[in-house]
Amino acid sequence: MKFPQPVTVAWIADLINAEAIGDASMNAYGINEIHKVEDGDLCFVDHPKYYDKCLNSNATHIIINTKEVTVPAGKTLLVVAEPFEAYLTIVNHFRPFTAAVKSVSDTAVIGEGTVIMPNVFIGKDVKIGSNCVIHPNVSLLDYTEIGNNVVIQAGTVIGSDAFYYNTKKNRDVWYRRMQSCGNVLIEDDVEIGAGCTIDRGVTASTRIGAGTKIDNMVHIGHDTNVGKNCLFAAQVGIAGATTIEDGVVLWGQVGVSKTLTIGANAVVYAQSGVPASLEGGKVYFGSPAEDAQVKKKELVWVKRIPELWKKVME
Amino acid sequence: MKFPQPVTVAWIADLINAEAIGDASMNAYGINEIHKVEDGDLCFVDHPKYYDKCLNSNATHIIINTKEVTVPAGKTLLVVAEPFEAYLTIVNHFRPFTAAVKSVSDTAVIGEGTVIMPNVFIGKDVKIGSNCVIHPNVSLLDYTEIGNNVVIQAGTVIGSDAFYYNTKKNRDVWYRRMQSCGNVLIEDDVEIGAGCTIDRGVTASTRIGAGTKIDNMVHIGHDTNVGKNCLFAAQVGIAGATTIEDGVVLWGQVGVSKTLTIGANAVVYAQSGVPASLEGGKVYFGSPAEDAQVKKKELVWVKRIPELWKKVME
Amino acid sequence: MKFPQPVTVAWIADLINAEAIGDASMNAYGINEIHKVEDGDLCFVDHPKYYDKCLNSNATHIIINTKEVTVPAGKTLLVVAEPFEAYLTIVNHFRPFTAAVKSVSDTAVIGEGTVIMPNVFIGKDVKIGSNCVIHPNVSLLDYTEIGNNVVIQAGTVIGSDAFYYNTKKNRDVWYRRMQSCGNVLIEDDVEIGAGCTIDRGVTASTRIGAGTKIDNMVHIGHDTNVGKNCLFAAQVGIAGATTIEDGVVLWGQVGVSKTLTIGANAVVYAQSGVPASLEGGKVYFGSPAEDAQVKKKELVWVKRIPELWKKVME
Repeated sequence: MKFPQPVTVAWIADLINAEAIGDASMNAYGINEIHKVEDGDLCFVDHPKYYDKCLNSNATHIIINTKEVTVPAGKTLLVVAEPFEAYLTIVNHFRPFTAAVKSVSDTAVIGEGTVIMPNVFIGKDVKIGSNCVIHPNVSLLDYTEIGNNVVIQAGTVIGSDAFYYNTKKNRDVWYRRMQSCGNVLIEDDVEIGAGCTIDRGVTASTRIGAGTKIDNMVHIGHDTNVGKNCLFAAQVGIAGATTIEDGVVLWGQVGVSKTLTIGANAVVYAQSGVPASLEGGKVYFGSPAEDAQVKKKELVWVKRIPELWKKVME
Repeated sequence: MKFPQPVTVAWIADLINAEAIGDASMNAYGINEIHKVEDGDLCFVDHPKYYDKCLNSNATHIIINTKEVTVPAGKTLLVVAEPFEAYLTIVNHFRPFTAAVKSVSDTAVIGEGTVIMPNVFIGKDVKIGSNCVIHPNVSLLDYTEIGNNVVIQAGTVIGSDAFYYNTKKNRDVWYRRMQSCGNVLIEDDVEIGAGCTIDRGVTASTRIGAGTKIDNMVHIGHDTNVGKNCLFAAQVGIAGATTIEDGVVLWGQVGVSKTLTIGANAVVYAQSGVPASLEGGKVYFGSPAEDAQVKKKELVWVKRIPELWKKVME
Repeated sequence: MKFPQPVTVAWIADLINAEAIGDASMNAYGINEIHKVEDGDLCFVDHPKYYDKCLNSNATHIIINTKEVTVPAGKTLLVVAEPFEAYLTIVNHFRPFTAAVKSVSDTAVIGEGTVIMPNVFIGKDVKIGSNCVIHPNVSLLDYTEIGNNVVIQAGTVIGSDAFYYNTKKNRDVWYRRMQSCGNVLIEDDVEIGAGCTIDRGVTASTRIGAGTKIDNMVHIGHDTNVGKNCLFAAQVGIAGATTIEDGVVLWGQVGVSKTLTIGANAVVYAQSGVPASLEGGKVYFGSPAEDAQVKKKELVWVKRIPELWKKVME
């Protein structure tokens, strides 16, 4: 998330009650997760294991719970006891959750020729292009951006919060939500089936590339990046921060784990489970998914165990 | 789809800008897909591989992109460069998508004793029988027909568009939707759980037979024909144009592929995947599904591989 | 379900047209299923196989279709031809289905600081604690009770009817719904994703324990008891009357069968199927699920069959 306008490090330090180390007159332009952060942004880290990674990321300003680190030149530290709480404070300041009072927000922008059917919810700052159809009982949550010629079938939810928690098992409540301030971007000519859910990015965007078609009851996690002209059959589930390149086909009930990449034009057969990255241009099957031909041969080999047993016994 | 009244072949030729070959004064009664088409109907074909199949189907009038075929006696050709576009033109003429302005259409017919709960959407020409309960946030889309004593739990979508595309990878947008003009037929005493989706037929009907009970989050694809007294547990997914005969039981998370048949009173255990037709009256398990007893034995055989290995090594 | 106030056995006998055997002046306090029933409650039984179990359960008053049983001291029999119909009559008397006329019932109680977004349905006698967020298009059905600091994402359904049928294949309609009179209890700090469905208990409560976090499109069946601080990833399905103890983690698309127990802090990997109880504190994988290490070794063994075959052939 970028801030609506730059703020100084001193201003942030005041907001989150931090000690600033470095040039507090520098500007901060936004706050993002370590793998999304850009030059000028804030990032937070609270575990020693990730201190170095965060200090050497693209982040310019690091919210951290120690002073005992070497700060790279041109960067600042914002030292607090609980960096995660500081993150929440900043997000709540710039993107406070606001209770909607109307089904279609006054700040939503809806393009020419676009049809909004009854019982649709459209949140704050949602942008919808031209010639779209948004079917009944769809929820388009705050900050969602939709291109032209997009169809969203009934009952689908776009922009629900990321399933992303700060875990500490010595607390009474083990899991505390890392509040989402990202959004969902749906490009031109995308069609999304009925009863789907697409979560917003935690600090950046979940993207559905142009021309991609999605069947009913497909779930797509936060920060996932789906390419152009993909085809996802019903009940597919894709976890968070995954990259699906252009032209990928996932058949029904396929499950894809988080943060991996499926290469362009790969095809994954129904009910397969994808625990790790897959090379593009190939066909996969199984849970865990592997080359479909190899997997099919394996199924035949399994059928031959009794025969093998008999041979050995003889 | 049948037309509201018959039209002449000449009239159709004019609508889609086609050259008519044969008796253009003949009547056309509807337009349907090749496996649904009836005597007097139009059908379209654009791939040489399917020319013969279409010409020799029940269709009386064939929209086609060639003249170099032998026309069976009593049939007509409608020759155009892009038969798929002609199909869309005809469907849009007879069943244009119309933006609903109310949650319950004025053309909907609702039987005596039927309860419609708040936040329900009921589209154009929807028919609901008597003594039904339609729970909150349900969407019953255009042309859906529902019998008597039917219960539909909250959030379910009936009549979403078919996931059915014309694919050409030399276009910028590879997949273009084949617009649905069919509907969903739900017979008496059917009960459908919460968060389900049932797609309408492309040109004909998706049917749920009398007395069938469906748990939550079940997806049923376009043109699928479900028999009487079936039982589908939660999160089952059935692809398009499949036949499920009477009394079939599918346990949770079962996936069924397209265009196949599951015979009467078959039982398929949880999480199984059905890639091909299954004989009725038997019990199945696995992905791919096979006879449950055979599959269970196979699981035992797999456990014995280390023992087998040891024997061979000795 | 407890009755709003106690009634006499004589009164019940009159309502369901039963012959009372025993002290008809005794009070009945509620009606429940055999495994939920408490001292003073009614229970029904119609199959000789379960006569003894029901007579010796905690139930004080037994609705039954025979007199040829020995009645334990201090209990009463209510003899009718169709105990299942008698059950329905009692449930319909005390918890009649009523058509809602408003999106938010006048009898709902909503705590301070709780935000109800547009297009939400809130049924009869629903109770929601303080500082909750109920996102758009959510359905909270009759009698649902929700604690404090609970978040429910868009499109989710809480309190749909149990998928629970009285089956007789000699009837025209094989399956008749056992009407639900239970509810859903959601404790403090629970968060539930978008597009989820949680069924109410048949006669008691479906419970989600404090601090549990549930991702999108998760289905939880009737009377299931989920402990504290559990984590369920997207598209998990849990059948009815299951016990999930505290701290259990279920990854994406896991399926869990009915009436079993998963012990505290167990972890079940994605796409696994759980057909029977699992001990706590361990990690599981596979369909059927087993110890994850054992399952992984098995996958390696299967890969070695061709090598084994070669050795045997030599």
